[in-house]
Amino acid sequence: MSRLESFIRRMTAQRDILDQVCAEVAKIEGPVLELGLGNGRTYHHLRERLPGRRIVAFDRALAAHSSSIPEAENLVLGEIRETAGRFIGIDAALVHADIGTGYQDRDAVTATWLPELAARLLRVGGIAVSGTPLDHPLLQRLVPPPSVPADRYFICRRV
Amino acid sequence: MSRLESFIRRMTAQRDILDQVCAEVAKIEGPVLELGLGNGRTYHHLRERLPGRRIVAFDRALAAHSSSIPEAENLVLGEIRETAGRFIGIDAALVHADIGTGYQDRDAVTATWLPELAARLLRVGGIAVSGTPLDHPLLQRLVPPPSVPADRYFICRRV
Repeated sequence: MSRLESFIRRMTAQRDILDQVCAEVAKIEGPVLELGLGNGRTYHHLRERLPGRRIVAFDRALAAHSSSIPEAENLVLGEIRETAGRFIGIDAALVHADIGTGYQDRDAVTATWLPELAARLLRVGGIAVSGTPLDHPLLQRLVPPPSVPADRYFICRRV
Repeated sequence: MSRLESFIRRMTAQRDILDQVCAEVAKIEGPVLELGLGNGRTYHHLRERLPGRRIVAFDRALAAHSSSIPEAENLVLGEIRETAGRFIGIDAALVHADIGTGYQDRDAVTATWLPELAARLLRVGGIAVSGTPLDHPLLQRLVPPPSVPADRYFICRRV
């Protein structure tokens, strides 16, 4: 499969998961944390699906399209592992992480710290969604929508 | 529509157009020019669809994934308008341009020089595909595949 095909599947999976998850997150109190703002497309989607909800976006540096830049108080720049760590205890309803690089060795490093960070950012009952694995005793894996290829996206509930 | 939705539609349209066009380009002699390598996903797709064909990729700077970097002799870095201009007369079978920015004012500037450049790079009968308009007397608009939303992608034959 070409990388373009693979990318389309990944983006489609991301949208389908977020649409499913946002219907549930609408009923859970707490902010949404977007780890990896990037171009801001997912942030834009979350804003549409969760009107009025506080969404805090994190990235190493700002690279988003002008239509998708959060308010200054909801944009946190710097190494995500460190900056997001300062928000532990915020009782987030949703943590969405899209910080996979396409390089297995780098993504394996992310998988060593992201699950613990996500678990500590979420309130009990909150949801974590990630393009890299979320193996953690406090994160219970949920079944993704049928359109999502296995092991392309991960969705968990904080227990 | 969210920017994520819009992006998925654009990528899907790009794939469907390239799949349709590559079946025809396989019967046309000449290299393929990829204006805007970016992450290299489309380049990777073109390589799969046109095995053995020379593909020359242009970009301002190299930002591609390691799996999608052309051989040194087929990678041209610098301002695309200038670097690709040096290849006029190469009689390309396909010119694919994915250099839209999502900013209307910047894309309007691209639309002032890209059509003429594409027309002069292509052989007669060759095909141009772009995410920005290709209005030019030597570029005859072709009908895109049915999955492609109107005015999201442009496909033309050099007459």
